[in-house]
Amino acid sequence: MEKLSRNSRVVAITKLLMENPNKIIGLNNFSDLLNAAKSTVSEDIVIVREVLEKLGMGRVETISGAAGGIKFINGISDESREQFGERLCELLKEPSRIVPGNFIYMTDLMYNPQIISKAGVILAKALGNQKADYVVTVETKGIPLAYEVAKNLGTELVIARRDNNKVTEGPTVTINYVSGSSGKIQQMSLSKKSLKTGSRCIFIDDFLKGGGTAKGIQDLLNEFDSELVGIGVLVDHIGAEKKLIDDYVSIIELKNVDKNGVVDLKPSKLLI
Amino acid sequence: MEKLSRNSRVVAITKLLMENPNKIIGLNNFSDLLNAAKSTVSEDIVIVREVLEKLGMGRVETISGAAGGIKFINGISDESREQFGERLCELLKEPSRIVPGNFIYMTDLMYNPQIISKAGVILAKALGNQKADYVVTVETKGIPLAYEVAKNLGTELVIARRDNNKVTEGPTVTINYVSGSSGKIQQMSLSKKSLKTGSRCIFIDDFLKGGGTAKGIQDLLNEFDSELVGIGVLVDHIGAEKKLIDDYVSIIELKNVDKNGVVDLKPSKLLI
Repeated sequence: MEKLSRNSRVVAITKLLMENPNKIIGLNNFSDLLNAAKSTVSEDIVIVREVLEKLGMGRVETISGAAGGIKFINGISDESREQFGERLCELLKEPSRIVPGNFIYMTDLMYNPQIISKAGVILAKALGNQKADYVVTVETKGIPLAYEVAKNLGTELVIARRDNNKVTEGPTVTINYVSGSSGKIQQMSLSKKSLKTGSRCIFIDDFLKGGGTAKGIQDLLNEFDSELVGIGVLVDHIGAEKKLIDDYVSIIELKNVDKNGVVDLKPSKLLI
Repeated sequence: MEKLSRNSRVVAITKLLMENPNKIIGLNNFSDLLNAAKSTVSEDIVIVREVLEKLGMGRVETISGAAGGIKFINGISDESREQFGERLCELLKEPSRIVPGNFIYMTDLMYNPQIISKAGVILAKALGNQKADYVVTVETKGIPLAYEVAKNLGTELVIARRDNNKVTEGPTVTINYVSGSSGKIQQMSLSKKSLKTGSRCIFIDDFLKGGGTAKGIQDLLNEFDSELVGIGVLVDHIGAEKKLIDDYVSIIELKNVDKNGVVDLKPSKLLI
């Protein structure tokens, strides 16, 4: 291939980094693709790193040693993050979202890639220090968000099922747990193949009320000799009386939905 | 903000485009962010467009008119696509994947962001001409793939549920459908709020055998006066006797799993 200009090389490097967040990429991958010397690629990477940091768009870290290279930690600028929080609060306050029982319908938001990709970057940043091996969720509404967090952390995703009779899953482990808010007993299952024992896991969900599901995930992970090292949710119902868990991060703090359907919520400290 | 160099501006433009695939972005968004004249940004975009096309990494289209701007169509190079197909076939042929009943365990692959993000780009490209308003799937295994296709097409995602008793969904529409392979009657539900009537929808799933689920989705969309305009799956079981549908795309074609657990499959024409 003909030689590319520096302008062109930095575009290609940016795209490759963004496609592989939190993965170490050796410099030879770039020099092979771009038909350029490693020293040239190193200078290109300095440019990419500087502008991403300046605009708050992420960090490029250098890992030295034989298995070394660079890795990209995705980011979002302070301004975009604040705008995102305000916009999300506006959306969640729309009166048309209130469904019978005074619940907020938020399924469309949980399945909107433009929203969930930003929320995923924010939660991944908040939980990135936990050095997790897996991101875990339980079907269904939190799956896209958990997927984005896993992608940004460079880990695999694990999804617990509510039923345990899928022929394509092989042997499964099933536990019972008590919903923190309703007190109802529920079940969740995980294929024996889905998780290596001795893993560090982050739990991601759409909504946290009593924390019963998070406790259930903890019990399920124990069956795999694995550990829950972090919890992140889109909406934390801080108005719920008591929580079974205390160590978690959220994007939105919901205080209350009053009897007229007026929603009282605000962005969490992650957004300010 | 101080002025940025061209090298720096093209990095930022690439990142913004990649975060918003198939969305029209006005040039003023870039000139505001980068503190540069529109004419300068236009020249930057030419550079980004040329290198992405040269490396098969995607296209940048110009949309003229008052609501105009540019939009990014994500792509994957021929070489990466072929490597991806070979690697995926190797993974699916691993003997340890065979679970009782001669099914292939592929949950870990469906939840692996490195695999699913590439598969999503490939299916989005194959189905991009359908001008879909939504990408639809039914829980659970196809959700990450459907999410990636929706993200790449710039649409929202809709997920049909297998149960219909979620209090947070509001009124739902439920249909019965017959599984094409087992003949078993199953149910799926969709919240009335999840889909605008008169929409064009693409159905994405992990595995296509008889096509009963796709027919079910078609029936469910009919209840919303909406249309199924495309179907994409990761694995097409071409060895299945008869299909209820004929117009679809796949990434892998599975012919057979023999009684010794030997898997016969190959990449589809999308990967060659």
